[in-house]
Parts: sequence; structure tokens; C-alpha cells
Amino acid sequence: MDVIIGIDIGGTNTKYGIIKKNGFILYENKVPTNKFKFLKDFVNYLTIELSIELKKIKNFKLLGIGIGAPNANYYSGCIENAPNLIWKGKIELKKIFQEKFNAPIIITNDANAAALGEMHFGSAKNIKDFVMITIGTGLGSGIVSNGEVIYGHDGFAGELGHTTVVNNGRNCNCGRKGCLETYVSSRGITKTYNELLLNSKFNTNKILTSEEIFNKAKDNDPLAIKTFDKTADILGYSLSNLVAITSPKIIVLYGGVVESGDLLIKPTKKYMENYLLDIFKNKTNIVKSKLNKYNGALLGASSLVLNEI
Amino acid sequence: MDVIIGIDIGGTNTKYGIIKKNGFILYENKVPTNKFKFLKDFVNYLTIELSIELKKIKNFKLLGIGIGAPNANYYSGCIENAPNLIWKGKIELKKIFQEKFNAPIIITNDANAAALGEMHFGSAKNIKDFVMITIGTGLGSGIVSNGEVIYGHDGFAGELGHTTVVNNGRNCNCGRKGCLETYVSSRGITKTYNELLLNSKFNTNKILTSEEIFNKAKDNDPLAIKTFDKTADILGYSLSNLVAITSPKIIVLYGGVVESGDLLIKPTKKYMENYLLDIFKNKTNIVKSKLNKYNGALLGASSLVLNEI
Repeated sequence: MDVIIGIDIGGTNTKYGIIKKNGFILYENKVPTNKFKFLKDFVNYLTIELSIELKKIKNFKLLGIGIGAPNANYYSGCIENAPNLIWKGKIELKKIFQEKFNAPIIITNDANAAALGEMHFGSAKNIKDFVMITIGTGLGSGIVSNGEVIYGHDGFAGELGHTTVVNNGRNCNCGRKGCLETYVSSRGITKTYNELLLNSKFNTNKILTSEEIFNKAKDNDPLAIKTFDKTADILGYSLSNLVAITSPKIIVLYGGVVESGDLLIKPTKKYMENYLLDIFKNKTNIVKSKLNKYNGALLGASSLVLNEI
Repeated sequence: MDVIIGIDIGGTNTKYGIIKKNGFILYENKVPTNKFKFLKDFVNYLTIELSIELKKIKNFKLLGIGIGAPNANYYSGCIENAPNLIWKGKIELKKIFQEKFNAPIIITNDANAAALGEMHFGSAKNIKDFVMITIGTGLGSGIVSNGEVIYGHDGFAGELGHTTVVNNGRNCNCGRKGCLETYVSSRGITKTYNELLLNSKFNTNKILTSEEIFNKAKDNDPLAIKTFDKTADILGYSLSNLVAITSPKIIVLYGGVVESGDLLIKPTKKYMENYLLDIFKNKTNIVKSKLNKYNGALLGASSLVLNEI
């Protein structure tokens, strides 16, 4: 049986598993990433776990291993200076895994992996031009044009989260100001809500999470609704510029913040349409990903292999 | 002999010619576009002119006809609502030419054609990820990723000139505000200079062209130099966002305004580097096109054919 290994390395957990070519998950598990002080131990652990499970599959043929990770580079096969991982500097992830497995190993950042997952198993099936936006603690993007992920000359393309949307805007972790992800992310939403709160008569000292703000918005709390509206305005603005550049057929939103669904998507669509150049109006849809937090990471990572066979 | 016909339809002139696969120009000519009230007459004229010239070539084999035109769509083969042409609405250019010539006909907008010209004959040879920016009366862009022009799902991608760079900024012909081309174009440069002039002690009523401003800058006129600096700041800002999205190896500048050379390119590079996210710094070069106003349009249009054979 033809199988693929998918590994999604996150700042908190690493999800890994074995799937069939049609996306059926044969096995999946997870482990806290930061449990392993040394990368060597991490790779050894995964190798043992996955080898045991592979052997349970009759006549298995391993087609390849797809790995999604923060700051991972498709060309170099390395993770480069990922702020949320304990392994610092440039990590030769592909090389180290290649010593353990006799199969093609393909690496890219988590947003590009998600884009491929969407193309193979989600809303972007048979769509050659689309954009995947992952909104969680930060904002990542994977851009697909002519049926291929845009990696750029150095493998780092798709950093929509670090395009500037507000001149001299909020401070970003990257050291710059006004990046999209300082507004459109769980952290950004929390900040916007608390800014609105400070300027309102409801001034309190309690800092709410983006999930709590989402729940308040569902209960028609005016400040929470205004928070989502402001977030949507900035995202819609950014997307209108992106559409002018790559003209995608759909924009797929994925990640924790997108669980808010129409509360974010509807006003984002409205603002994007308002900002768009005439020739692009009413052509590009914004949809919620069909992948979910349970299978998305694994299917995305596995799709890296599917995409090359 | 294998030959290609290139036709570049501009608001003022249409340039047309016959080239060899290596870019050698066998024949070239031009005609005022707006001389032809009806498209039919325009196509008939070109058909006769080109047929006569083709027959002079011994054992010629026509590989195809490449046509660059404003608002031309690669997928539909049509020019759609080009503001600078006298033929209004949706013009089925490909279909009409196809009735005259028994060879593949490929159409795209002028900036995409220029990008392909640069890939085949200019600074972008063997480069799979680059951006072509044409700066004249307006600003056009052709984006190449993974060795292919990004047309987008509808054929209209690459409208960098109509991305918003200043909130509530200058009025644009497109009906929106703050588009890049209202600042970075010959018209934009004229406007910036005259705005600076109004606020200076040198207040006069004379409106200068971008070429006159260029000449003043060469003579160290402080307002003219400041004009180029402001133009470069906005272009550098826009390019820093574009690099975060597509990560090109080089950005090629082409068109009348770029004749100013280092006066524009040097400060643009400086500002772009300042605005760039760390991982992109000192990786993307900005260069002047190797194509010129004499051969650029023709080689660009012809490259559309070269790209598909």
C-alpha cells in the first residue's frame, strides 16, 4: 500500500501521522515539540514511532515524507531562525531526516503546506490560482499561481503577514512597524479590542483573549463587533492589494481566528470589494478552509509529497 | 527560416515587426494607432504590410504572432476597456487576427510582454523569479514566478500600479485614491514636483514635464532631487511589500521615467532595503532594463511566441 508520512512541527506540538494518497488517515499522534532539547532526540523519537506504525501496514511503500514547519525553506531543506522553536539558528532538518528514511523528504513552511493541503483535499481542488491565509498567533500565507506554490528565488515568498498596512503602525515582533499580522491575528484582535475598551466608557483592566472577544461578539457586544469590523477592514484592504498582484480565484482562510467564521469573513469580503479595482470586483471569493485543526496540519504536510509525485 | 511577428499596440503608436528566434530584427515599422477609426482597417493594414515583408524572406516559416496591448487579456484574447485606445468595449483582437494568419496568436498586456522580453533577451535571462515594472504615463507590472508569468485566474494579475500605497491619497484615473501610479509615473513625478514648488519660495506657475524635472535634477536643483527622492520612497515602500509576497531575485525597471537611471534606482533601492523584512534584505537587486524604447516593445511582444514553443 502506498503511504505518505506527514509531520507538522509547531511551536507547541508536533503532529505526525501516516496517510493514504486519498487523504485517509491511517495513524496520527502528537508530541510536545519543546520536550526535545536536542533536535537529534526529536528526530530519533519520530523515527522510532513512525517505523513501528509503518511496519503494521501490510506491504507498505513509503512515497515520501512531507514536513511543514515555521520558517522552513523549501529549497534549502532547513529551518532558519524560527522564533518559536527551541532549536536556534539554521537547522538542517531535511538532511537529518534523510539519514533515517529512504524516501523523498520535502520541507516547507506551515502556510505553504496548508495551501497544498487545501489544493489536494480542501476548497481549492482544481483551482490553479488561489491564496491561503492562516490566521493564528500570527498571519501566514501560501500563494499558488499557475498551480504551483510561489516560493520565490530564495524559498521565503508568501510573507503577507509582514507586508506593511499602516505607516508607522503597531510594533511587530519582526522589529518593523505596521505589519498586517499586528492587526490581523489573535494578538492583533486582542490589542484592537483593548484599545477600543480604553477609549470607551466600559474601561476595565481585564485583558481578553481573541476567543473571549469572539464570544462577546456573538452576544452582540458592540465593542467586540467593532473589533472584528476593524480587523476585517485592514484584512480586506490588504487582500485588495494582493488580488491586484496575483488575482486569485479564491482566498481561503484557515486557523484559530477563522473559527469565528462569518463574523470575520463577511465584513472582510465587504471591505475587500470596496477597495478593489473595478476589473477585479465580484470575482474573488473568500471562504473558510475545509481543513480543520484536527486534520489540517497533517494533510497539509502530506500534500507536499503528493504534489511532487 | 523560422520567424515571429511582434506587434505592440500603444495608445500613440503601434510598433510591428518580424524577428528571428534569437531576437534579430529582420523588419520593423510603426503606425499611429488612432489613425484607424475601425479595428478592421487596423488589422487589414497590418496584415498587408506584414504579408509583403514576410514574402521577402526566403522559405519563411511563421512560428506565431505575439501581441502586447493595454488591458489585453491572455486567456480571452481580447482587449477589454482600454482607456487609451479609440476602440471601445471588448475587442476580440485574437479572433480577428486569427482570421488573417494561419499561425498561433498570443496576446497579453504590455507589461507582461515586457517581462517575457526581459526573460528572453534582457536582464532576466535564466531567472525564474523576477518582476518587471514599466513606468511611463502610468505604472504596469509583469510578475514571473517559477518561470511563468502570473496571469491570475482571470488574466488580469500584475496590476501593481493600482495597489493602494497612500490611504486617501491622490485621485487615480481608475476612480480610486492613493494608487501607486498616481505617485510613480511621469504624471506622478510632475505632480510631486509642482506640489513641492507650491510650498516653496520658488513658487511659479510653470508646469514642468517629468523629463524637464529629470534635467533639473541632473543640474542639482534641490526640488527636482527631492521629487525623485519622494518618488523613490513610495516605490521602495511598494516594492518591499511585493518582495514579501513573491520574493523576486531581481526587479527590472523599464520605460520612459527609468531613463533617469540612478537618479531613481539608487534611492529606490535604499528605501526598499530600509522597509524590507530582515530575511529579504540585500537579496533582491533593482536593475534598469536591457531592452530599450527602440526594440523593447517588439522583442517583448515576440517573446510571447517564444515562450510557448
